[in-house]
Amino acid sequence: MFASVLLLLVALCAHGGHGEEAPRPGHVSVVVVGGTGDLAKKYLWQGFFQLYARQVSGGNTFSFYGGGLSPAEKATPLLFEILKAVSCPGDVSAERCALLREQFLRLSQYRQLKTQEDYQSLAEHIQLQLQQEGMTEAGRLFYLSVPAFAYADIGQKINGSCRPAGGAWLRVVLEKPFGHDYRSAQVLASELRSSLKDEEMYRIDHYLGKQVVSKILPFRTENRKYLDPIWNRQHIERIEIVLKETLDVKGGRIPFYDQYGVIRDVLQNHLTEVMTLLTMKLPSNVSNSEEVLQNKLQVFSSLLPLGKNQAVTGQYQTYNSEVEQELNTTKGHISLTPTFAAVLAHIDEAQYEGVPILLISGKMLDERVGYARILFKNDVFCLQNHNNVHCKPKQIVFYFGHGSLQYPAVLVSKNLFKPVMTGSEWKEVTEHKEVSVLGLPASDYYVQTPAEEKEAYAELISHIFHGRKDSFISTENLLASWGMWTPLLRSLTSAFPRIYPGGAENGDMLDVRLKGNEISYNSEVVIVSADKMGDSSASSFKVMQGKFRSAHMVSAWTEELVETLAADMQEAAEAAIGEGGVFHLALSGGSTPLALFYRLALHHFSFPWRSTHVWMVDERCVPLTEPESNFYSLHESLLKHVRIPYYNIHPMPVQLNQRLCVEDDGGALLYEKDLSQLVNGSSFHFVLLGVGYDGHTASLFPGAKADQHGQSLVALTESPSKPHQRMSLTFNAINRARKVALLVMGKGKHELVTQLSRVKDMPEKYPVTGVKPANGSLVWYIDYDALIG
Amino acid sequence: MFASVLLLLVALCAHGGHGEEAPRPGHVSVVVVGGTGDLAKKYLWQGFFQLYARQVSGGNTFSFYGGGLSPAEKATPLLFEILKAVSCPGDVSAERCALLREQFLRLSQYRQLKTQEDYQSLAEHIQLQLQQEGMTEAGRLFYLSVPAFAYADIGQKINGSCRPAGGAWLRVVLEKPFGHDYRSAQVLASELRSSLKDEEMYRIDHYLGKQVVSKILPFRTENRKYLDPIWNRQHIERIEIVLKETLDVKGGRIPFYDQYGVIRDVLQNHLTEVMTLLTMKLPSNVSNSEEVLQNKLQVFSSLLPLGKNQAVTGQYQTYNSEVEQELNTTKGHISLTPTFAAVLAHIDEAQYEGVPILLISGKMLDERVGYARILFKNDVFCLQNHNNVHCKPKQIVFYFGHGSLQYPAVLVSKNLFKPVMTGSEWKEVTEHKEVSVLGLPASDYYVQTPAEEKEAYAELISHIFHGRKDSFISTENLLASWGMWTPLLRSLTSAFPRIYPGGAENGDMLDVRLKGNEISYNSEVVIVSADKMGDSSASSFKVMQGKFRSAHMVSAWTEELVETLAADMQEAAEAAIGEGGVFHLALSGGSTPLALFYRLALHHFSFPWRSTHVWMVDERCVPLTEPESNFYSLHESLLKHVRIPYYNIHPMPVQLNQRLCVEDDGGALLYEKDLSQLVNGSSFHFVLLGVGYDGHTASLFPGAKADQHGQSLVALTESPSKPHQRMSLTFNAINRARKVALLVMGKGKHELVTQLSRVKDMPEKYPVTGVKPANGSLVWYIDYDALIG
Repeated sequence: MFASVLLLLVALCAHGGHGEEAPRPGHVSVVVVGGTGDLAKKYLWQGFFQLYARQVSGGNTFSFYGGGLSPAEKATPLLFEILKAVSCPGDVSAERCALLREQFLRLSQYRQLKTQEDYQSLAEHIQLQLQQEGMTEAGRLFYLSVPAFAYADIGQKINGSCRPAGGAWLRVVLEKPFGHDYRSAQVLASELRSSLKDEEMYRIDHYLGKQVVSKILPFRTENRKYLDPIWNRQHIERIEIVLKETLDVKGGRIPFYDQYGVIRDVLQNHLTEVMTLLTMKLPSNVSNSEEVLQNKLQVFSSLLPLGKNQAVTGQYQTYNSEVEQELNTTKGHISLTPTFAAVLAHIDEAQYEGVPILLISGKMLDERVGYARILFKNDVFCLQNHNNVHCKPKQIVFYFGHGSLQYPAVLVSKNLFKPVMTGSEWKEVTEHKEVSVLGLPASDYYVQTPAEEKEAYAELISHIFHGRKDSFISTENLLASWGMWTPLLRSLTSAFPRIYPGGAENGDMLDVRLKGNEISYNSEVVIVSADKMGDSSASSFKVMQGKFRSAHMVSAWTEELVETLAADMQEAAEAAIGEGGVFHLALSGGSTPLALFYRLALHHFSFPWRSTHVWMVDERCVPLTEPESNFYSLHESLLKHVRIPYYNIHPMPVQLNQRLCVEDDGGALLYEKDLSQLVNGSSFHFVLLGVGYDGHTASLFPGAKADQHGQSLVALTESPSKPHQRMSLTFNAINRARKVALLVMGKGKHELVTQLSRVKDMPEKYPVTGVKPANGSLVWYIDYDALIG
Repeated sequence: MFASVLLLLVALCAHGGHGEEAPRPGHVSVVVVGGTGDLAKKYLWQGFFQLYARQVSGGNTFSFYGGGLSPAEKATPLLFEILKAVSCPGDVSAERCALLREQFLRLSQYRQLKTQEDYQSLAEHIQLQLQQEGMTEAGRLFYLSVPAFAYADIGQKINGSCRPAGGAWLRVVLEKPFGHDYRSAQVLASELRSSLKDEEMYRIDHYLGKQVVSKILPFRTENRKYLDPIWNRQHIERIEIVLKETLDVKGGRIPFYDQYGVIRDVLQNHLTEVMTLLTMKLPSNVSNSEEVLQNKLQVFSSLLPLGKNQAVTGQYQTYNSEVEQELNTTKGHISLTPTFAAVLAHIDEAQYEGVPILLISGKMLDERVGYARILFKNDVFCLQNHNNVHCKPKQIVFYFGHGSLQYPAVLVSKNLFKPVMTGSEWKEVTEHKEVSVLGLPASDYYVQTPAEEKEAYAELISHIFHGRKDSFISTENLLASWGMWTPLLRSLTSAFPRIYPGGAENGDMLDVRLKGNEISYNSEVVIVSADKMGDSSASSFKVMQGKFRSAHMVSAWTEELVETLAADMQEAAEAAIGEGGVFHLALSGGSTPLALFYRLALHHFSFPWRSTHVWMVDERCVPLTEPESNFYSLHESLLKHVRIPYYNIHPMPVQLNQRLCVEDDGGALLYEKDLSQLVNGSSFHFVLLGVGYDGHTASLFPGAKADQHGQSLVALTESPSKPHQRMSLTFNAINRARKVALLVMGKGKHELVTQLSRVKDMPEKYPVTGVKPANGSLVWYIDYDALIG
């Protein structure tokens, strides 16, 4: 064992340019748990040595511990093998380097860290050393380079036995994976929170340590005057964030990878972080981690939900046999884990509305390269010479490295602007190799590269030491990201990835096509042979036509059913408008039609909203601004997403004279009057109804007399459930409609559907059976869940 | 003089595929007024001869008259020179051709057509001939190949003396120019209408006779299944309609051209027609001229208005000296007539919203070519090989001819679809020259070309004979087109065109850039030397800052003033939202702010409407759906163009309990309550006011006591003008605002501005002087017209 020699060199604390805190003076203990593992060997010790080399004359003293499960006699030699290999920063002389390395080795030791007692003993060791040397303690840095399942346990042990005293800091560094979905991330976060405070945890995403990535926000800030006018949907054609790898997953990573796949491994973290940096509102101070976090969270909250139509997945051909081999699965086992994914995201903010954001990554592709590209719209018309530079694509590329360029760089095409890069950390490249970068020769760009290439882990280790939290993933950020990805991952659970051969042979198999909000492979390829797929009947998406209660019925899986209904609705709208210039649509509340509303808002871009009047089938007697209100959810899921004239929106007047549904205020009559005036013959073109578990439809509940409302079109009614008071179209109004669609979805409705298929018209018991358009048509839209159970 | 021999060959009438009427049997007299002029020589007689060759065995007989102002003895030899040169269609044998030509010559004669008597005598001649030969008359076709100023006069003479009797048709063919603006076109149309019926007039746009142009609608119909999903803003990147010429205007055309310029000469007619064909709703029958017309008119009514920011103009360098020479103008005369124009149009329909439509034409450019291109968005992401055909631009090109391809064609890039072309009139080209067409090698397209090239005039002459009106410009269509172009032409009256050298030397001088709704030249070039421009002070667009009534004042020319105010408003919105998440904006009615509202709707795409609440400064006591209502005009000019949540729109409740502004209904109080609840401290972030000629502001009129409304925020008031009843924010509400903008524009306000600059605060006499924000700021926005007079 080595005696730890404390070197105290008093010097001025160097203040960096990043708003970092001045390091607390005193002794710092660095503990790399998993200190002889791959990551530690490859990056971490090198990073800590660089930290040491930079900080040795900065007012702190250090000791370094490699920790692990192995006993010290076995692991110590391993650790020192690793430590001896560290190299100095380029600006350190060979002589000084040798000295520094020798000191570093003397300050380092291996400790077994397995039991609570081990941590206790480490704490005592640190304490003793501090006393012996008469030092105050600055802080303790634990880097957990271990599988994620061990985090909570280690966190507890640190908290139980190894916290520094007297105001010294504790920083615990964690590496992904942080859970495999929202729920597990939440569990892990709350377990960790029981032993560690939020500010003590540093979740690393090493992409945030890459110089090009950490330049994104400063670049956007420094070039604001050029970017502000063009950083929006009017100018951005699309954003691509791409990480292509040539390697496969073999060699020990399969047990992990097969559980995770490319989306969890790369998209949920690295690519998502880059996306937020590119699209977040610029903070007034890029190093203000709280402001950066809030602005990032804003991006997540504005994302349109990702469903299976926003992703395509692939798997390289030999992956499955690798899984068979390494996991010893039974012959014929099929892993559906994707090794390639392309995902299409959209941010539902005026600034980015409609701008496609592509996140793409895969193993076994034709080249190794990572970049984020902002491609601008071609807004120049060249009358004569199409090879003129200003007729070429305009783009900004954050090039993370490798690929044709072979070095990290920020590239701005010359037809955009000459970027400003403050400080001396970046230099312009003016001599270009004859390479093409994303369609343009390198010489068509202004190219900036870091003056000195720095390793991401070394950068991040320095940030941890300086307490700079802006390059780490906060709990909120993490959960928001899982919130984005979990629904997609769930919808892909049983999706078959496209099988690709790997390498250049992939050809154009993995090229993707964007269509509105959706993404698909550009070419049709048989994904997997039928015998491999087993029974494919469950994935048959055909839409079935039939009869239900002597009316027309359409049935399909939920998603296809909603698609069909939306298309039918648009067709009805176009027909009505073609005929009379206007489309009167009455919509129901409740949760069932929400999917339909989203579909209309996000896919039916040419729906003729300008000539459509939207009426309510029923309303709860609550203010229209309450989330409980039917109108409110209609507004949130549909109306606010489309351009519909104010005059064409007809909420029910449940609130008049500052009170709710008072008979004397005549709200029902008022609505009836509006309706009679505007709707020809009070006959809606399209009425969308649902049906409740008790057979109610609109707000017409069992037990009421069917003819109770006589010739009224609108009435106040009573619901058995809260809020009891309702306003509703009457059977008279509904049955005057040209078309009535009855939408029934979900396994929960199966029982009811079965009953309804048997009973006669009994509108007092099953109000829905009172829906019988006099001169119009009734169509039941029932999903397979409700129909088949 | 020739005896007119009538050849009557009975045959079955051939029914064409275009829904054309069966020609009425009998004799047809064709009269080409201006029969020895250039156009007649070049195209018309050739066209009529082809008609004759096709129809000679079709049940009609013919005689042909060349008419003109010259006496017959002088003009007859000229006419026969021309007639002898006509050639036969390719499928006619030399022998038969000689026979046909001989017959044609025998059927033709020259007649002087100058006076009413000349027309009278022509009519008698025709009548006599009919009697002599015992023929019934089918109809008379007058082709007016004369300057437009003569149309009305000739129309009268035809009407007065030359109408056929007994149900025979009269068809009078006119060539552009049809007026030089909306007004003159209207005058000409009504003059013509006094002698000719609408259905008798055939206004020719020879572009509609080009085979590729007349294929646009059939192509769109035949390929509907491919086009329907992509013929919309989600997929179309932009539309370009381009006609490039290499010639100058010299040689006699200058007197005409200098009055018209390129916009009237080419854009208003040819390019506009192509635009409507590309964007109109498909008629159910492409030959139904009424349906085609209605759908075309729909396009015009959906066009966003064209202002000077939607166009750039140019003039070739030697044009001005050509004008000096040919028009004998004084040395130093400057013609502002554009010989080049690029115009950016937008159709404000969901289908095309935001799709740029470029109309471009010019003289003295580098090549002769005409085309319409629909460029689709690049919706494919190529992971590997960027030269793959599906990564290339997707486009459909209607190629009118010349240019690199040298023949007319419809081209569909192979990454789109293989087009369907029914019938035998089109053939696929499979062997391609090595030429590039709009960025793609010819071999990257499916190329279809007419099986037999037909001359546009011959096509149209055949349509006239068959009474097919769908390829001609109806009066409504003409006026709609002038309605589109006249405001732009007016706004360009004193605009200086960019001077370009001509030919390939133009380089990139005429390249244009699109920015949202606006177009500009892509490169900065000094347009014209200062000494040539004369006094340029009037075109100085600087925005001036100053003081008015001790408050801050911004002054500028109207357009710049509106731009500044819109920008200030957006800045205020962003600041308020940055601070508190919401922006409360109160807007005035009246006509003054309309330009501002349009500016916000059409240029401020990133205005944060989603977080903006719009309130009314005042309202007239009329239903909100009446055009008189302030809210109505706000809705039409602004609200319906932006995506603002329903909840954020706050019209004043002037109508309650089905009556208007009744004190007892408490509308003012209701608005005040809403306002107090939603707006922090009832303090709007921004209030936009105007001022009336009598000094009133909001609906606060002279004569009322300034403190009459006490602490109320909203009140019912009385206007001296109709409608008398108003609802208005009070001084109390206005003066609580953070920022108040007072917008004053127009020469009519100059007197008032002068008065206001002199008087003290006299709110009872000049209510506007009562605007004094207590803790906010007041800014006057006064245009130069109002300020300087």
